[in-house]
Amino acid sequence: MKQGVGNLAVIGVGLIGGSLARALRQSGAVQRIVGCGRGLENLERAVELGVIDAYTQDVGEAVRDADMVFVAVPLGAMRRVFEQMNGHLPPQAVVTDGGSAKATVISDFRASCPDHLQQFVAGHPIAGTERNGVEASFADLYRDRRVILTPEEDTDPEALARVTRMWQACGAEVVRMDVQRHDRVLAATSHLPHMLAFGLVDTLARMDEHDDIFRFAAGGFRDFTRIASSNPLMWRDICIANREAVAEVMLNFAGEMKDLAASIERGDGDRLLAVFERAKAARDAFVDGLSEANTDTEEG
Amino acid sequence: MKQGVGNLAVIGVGLIGGSLARALRQSGAVQRIVGCGRGLENLERAVELGVIDAYTQDVGEAVRDADMVFVAVPLGAMRRVFEQMNGHLPPQAVVTDGGSAKATVISDFRASCPDHLQQFVAGHPIAGTERNGVEASFADLYRDRRVILTPEEDTDPEALARVTRMWQACGAEVVRMDVQRHDRVLAATSHLPHMLAFGLVDTLARMDEHDDIFRFAAGGFRDFTRIASSNPLMWRDICIANREAVAEVMLNFAGEMKDLAASIERGDGDRLLAVFERAKAARDAFVDGLSEANTDTEEG
Repeated sequence: MKQGVGNLAVIGVGLIGGSLARALRQSGAVQRIVGCGRGLENLERAVELGVIDAYTQDVGEAVRDADMVFVAVPLGAMRRVFEQMNGHLPPQAVVTDGGSAKATVISDFRASCPDHLQQFVAGHPIAGTERNGVEASFADLYRDRRVILTPEEDTDPEALARVTRMWQACGAEVVRMDVQRHDRVLAATSHLPHMLAFGLVDTLARMDEHDDIFRFAAGGFRDFTRIASSNPLMWRDICIANREAVAEVMLNFAGEMKDLAASIERGDGDRLLAVFERAKAARDAFVDGLSEANTDTEEG
Repeated sequence: MKQGVGNLAVIGVGLIGGSLARALRQSGAVQRIVGCGRGLENLERAVELGVIDAYTQDVGEAVRDADMVFVAVPLGAMRRVFEQMNGHLPPQAVVTDGGSAKATVISDFRASCPDHLQQFVAGHPIAGTERNGVEASFADLYRDRRVILTPEEDTDPEALARVTRMWQACGAEVVRMDVQRHDRVLAATSHLPHMLAFGLVDTLARMDEHDDIFRFAAGGFRDFTRIASSNPLMWRDICIANREAVAEVMLNFAGEMKDLAASIERGDGDRLLAVFERAKAARDAFVDGLSEANTDTEEG
């Protein structure tokens, strides 16, 4: 095997894929980097910026000489990309990805590249910004961030080790987690808050008083709804990819809101106080325990 | 009438009451300031800091020589304060308050001080921070913020004008609004987001995976739940004071979550995209239109 990552193929050279390429380049852990994507202009810019060495728009060609393949396309495009690489992956190539939901990506790979399954390591870097495209990418995106890997029983331990070392070379902390647990945890911490923010803004926009509502909304509202400015296409894909876990936490949350509304209607101050105090304690403990490792990240 | 506000009585010398005193002092629009409250240490500190000239713990005594009375106590304590000032208010005294819900405060005043009703002007400064007590108060809290006044048909126009001038002397923009509309607008923009934040943290804290949930929550979650660190007692009072409007928007929101969850479960990508795009457009327009006037405020 070549030193470090060897030859890297990045499918989807945006913020996530471009930042991995930059970080590995900076750490000297990579040889040649080939980019692949649908936007020709973005790929040309990626070469100009030195993020990738060359590009192709053919997935099969991109992975032909790869030691490591990183797929950083929207969740809804994963399956098609995997289908296009089937039959073109060299035996030594390890495939990993950056999708926000993992069961669906594993299922897509299993269906598309059944002969390469042991070499596939599903992953999810907990990092991002609100910006898109290779212009937004930077080498330090993953520094001191967490990357969750969700290997399966049949995953080759050496493939897992190679992906782990790749992320460590970017300065990230690698954590392993069961696939179902990953999808439930992310549904709760990331997907649900996004649904609340989208749903809140949409609910208010449809109220009779919407002009005054937006006029008198204060800074707290701005912070609270910041994630409602996220990419609608990306979030459609995430919701559908992680539909079971997302729908479940949303229904749990809707039930909690109904219970709380009932307590408010009957003026049950003791119950309200208990809920608010419990939430404040949990939130304050969360902030106290929040390391610099995961501040200021956006995606999940 | 004396120049400007004249003699001011501040009932509740915390962030809200203390900041009004400081702002009026700084602008030269006030004569003597008497503070009143339950915490003796806080009142002594307020005198040391020069925020007030004197204090008493007797509401009747505090308002005896007042031209203007500002009540900045929790909503649940308003009625008792009003009852204590009944019979002690001089004829020229205008009474106003800083509560986050207005119908309940007006009803409390009507029941407690029926003979002084025309001199009562309910108000709500849209400003605040997460800190409490006179130590947290500062003269610029209300500068370029909005203050909503909700006068009624029988409110004396001169009393309304005096309260308006008082807030303008603090650098605030004064807006008049119908009481019911105020309570609905604030339920939507402030009270509902607080319920979502408290409810979200509480829901997650009770999930089986709560350790990993808080471990892998990223910066977006921190921003989203910041308001769950607000004062539980204050929010209990706000919920109960504005119970009808708050419960209504919470149930509307719970319904929106259920609909959205159903769209996710059946994989209705078109509907999800439509909701997310509508919300993003409304939120982006809100941020574009957000003047410096109401950034960084916390309470509502």
